[in-house]
This record gives sequence, C-alpha cells and structure tokens, in this order.
Amino acid sequence: MKNRVITISREFGSGGRTIGKQTAAVLNIPCYDRELVEKIARQSGLDPDYVESASEDAPGGPIVSAFSNGDFGPNNADYIWTIQYRIITELAEQGPCVIVGRCADYILRDKADCLRVFVHADQAFRARRILKEYGERETPAVQRLRDKDKRRAAYHRFYTDMKWGHAQNYDLTLNSGTFGIDRCVAIIADLFLHPNPDRPQTTSG
Amino acid sequence: MKNRVITISREFGSGGRTIGKQTAAVLNIPCYDRELVEKIARQSGLDPDYVESASEDAPGGPIVSAFSNGDFGPNNADYIWTIQYRIITELAEQGPCVIVGRCADYILRDKADCLRVFVHADQAFRARRILKEYGERETPAVQRLRDKDKRRAAYHRFYTDMKWGHAQNYDLTLNSGTFGIDRCVAIIADLFLHPNPDRPQTTSG
Repeated sequence: MKNRVITISREFGSGGRTIGKQTAAVLNIPCYDRELVEKIARQSGLDPDYVESASEDAPGGPIVSAFSNGDFGPNNADYIWTIQYRIITELAEQGPCVIVGRCADYILRDKADCLRVFVHADQAFRARRILKEYGERETPAVQRLRDKDKRRAAYHRFYTDMKWGHAQNYDLTLNSGTFGIDRCVAIIADLFLHPNPDRPQTTSG
Repeated sequence: MKNRVITISREFGSGGRTIGKQTAAVLNIPCYDRELVEKIARQSGLDPDYVESASEDAPGGPIVSAFSNGDFGPNNADYIWTIQYRIITELAEQGPCVIVGRCADYILRDKADCLRVFVHADQAFRARRILKEYGERETPAVQRLRDKDKRRAAYHRFYTDMKWGHAQNYDLTLNSGTFGIDRCVAIIADLFLHPNPDRPQTTSG
C-alpha cells in the first residue's frame, strides 16, 4: 500500500509554499520544503544556499556551470539530483506528507499515491506578494518572478521531460490570486481527506 | 457589474461537457454547449455539423480548407468565429451561465467575471469514457482523442494566441479521472457560489 503524498509545484510568489505548510498543518502531517534542502546539503556536503540555487538551475545554467569542472560527465546538479531523488523517495515511504517543489511529483510518480497540485497566479498578485514577503531588491519584482519561473521550468524539463505548468501533469491546479490562500488550503485538504475510491493509483500520461 | 460566467475547456472524453451541464443544473443557470452550435448555424446559414467540425479545426486544417475558396481572405472559420464571438458576448450579457468550449474564456476575458476551468484526464480514463459514450468506431479510441485534442489546441492557439491546457490560462484545472465527475461538479459549484471577494475581476496574463 503506497503512502498518500501531496506534491505542490508552484510559480514563484504564488503562495504555493505557504499553501503547502498550511495544508500539512490542517492534516497534521509533515511538510517538506526547506527541510529537504537541509537534508540534501547534509548528505552531499554542499552548502544549503548552493543546493537551493542549483535546484532551480538546469545543467548548463549559470550557477551550476560555475561549480562544474567543464567535463561532459555528471556535474553538481546531477549529484544533487541523485541525493534529492533518494531523500524524497525515503520520505514518501515513511508516511503521508506534503512536499513542496523539487520535482517530487515526477520522482514519486510510481512510488506514492500522489495528489499532484500546481499553484499559480497572475503577475500583479505575485509581484505584490513577493514585495511583501521578501521586500524590495535591486531587481524589480516582475523581473525576479520571471527569472525564477524560467529557471524552475527549465530545471523541471531537464530532469523530468515533463512540461512545468501543463494542466495534464497535475490532478489539480489552482490560481491562488482568484481563490486566495485559505481557500486553496481548504480545497486541497478536503480532496486529500475524501479521495475518490475509483482514482487510478499510478500516473500515466 | 459584469455577469459571472463559468467557462469550461476540456480534453475530448474527459467529461467536461457533462460537468458543465451538471454544474449548471446545480446552480440553476443555463449551460450553452450544443445550443451554441445551433445558434451559430442559424445566424450563419451553415449546417450545424459543419459549424461543430469547423470550430475544432484551425484555418488551414482539412475541413475548413475544403470549404474555402482558396483565396487568402477570411474563410468560413473566420466567419464562424465572428458570429461565435458575438453570440457568446450576448449570452454573457444576459446573465450568469456555463459555456462549454468555443474559446469562451478568451472571448469573455474582459466582458464577464469568469471562473475559467479546464478539465482533463489520462488517456486510459478518456478512452474508456468515449467508448461508453460514443461507442466503437473504425478509428481506435486513443487515436480519436489524440486527433480531437490536437485540433482543439490548434484552433485555440490560432484564435486566442493562448496555449490550451496551460494552467496559467485558467483559475482551476481538474483531472476528472482522479476526482470523478460528481466531485468536479461539487468543487466548481462551490467556488461559484462562494467567490473570493478579493479576486481580480479582469484576467491579465
């Protein structure tokens, strides 16, 4: 019997991380987000900030290349991916949980009974939110979120060959700007608590 | 004050049309689907079956080309589009309703307060459903749904410049195979009945 896991992919600034944490709190199950980065850092010997950046940078991107030796073999991003793959698999084996980001939807596609969620919102909503959450930076908010989303999409495509943000890759996608954070939490928690008994247990395209 | 409208785009065989009809019944508002085709047929003088086919065939596709005179000017599909645009706009002005397909999400983007929904499901679920609903045909079910989806995506892209099935174009996307038809209806109806008062009223990318 596979454990039930909620995986949350999200656009930067959409509140996906907050939705993940609040959903986990409502359901009284763990939420893995920053904890994942720290676990990967410990097992890899790499710095947590580096791990966090590298996971949003497809091989060949600026951050990973700077740390790569220029050979064509596996680089740091691939090394991190291997550890991340193992850690996420182990966490899903321990029990029901929420996992935010890090391609958990792909990694667990045959290993857990996943409710695969994608959270997004329009740029105006996200720009307001990142200014509130992370404050002013030299780079304008809209440019920051475009950069982040591009990196996430490229990383996801490189490692999973799935298109980030395509409805068909998820069970549920929510516009947090339309519904608000609390409503998104309520919908996800309710779908987790009352699953359809006839749902397919593996995800095939 | 703009009227509230539920627009439902859907993969062939996902049950999106059924979900639209049932949601409208729960909310006691009209659902426009086949009725739209008939209205367009009446106003254009074209045959309803032709209107139905042409709306899933981007200009240049086989059906429209066969009826086009080969010039570079507007063809039948463009003519249908103009009428469809006007009819959908008028229906949304009359009162709250559900509209299935026909790019209503795009047409009404500034004209109504839309809850934009996309319904999809994996191929196995859809193939079973179309066999049940439409029966055996010479073309196998999986090929039929691939063909239909390709046409719908191409038509949508041609007239709206939006990518069909991208989560970012909708407020909500639902995998009907995961949740079942009834649950999808309940979620949409509840979101319509209890909207977030802080939602943006126009849809900007």
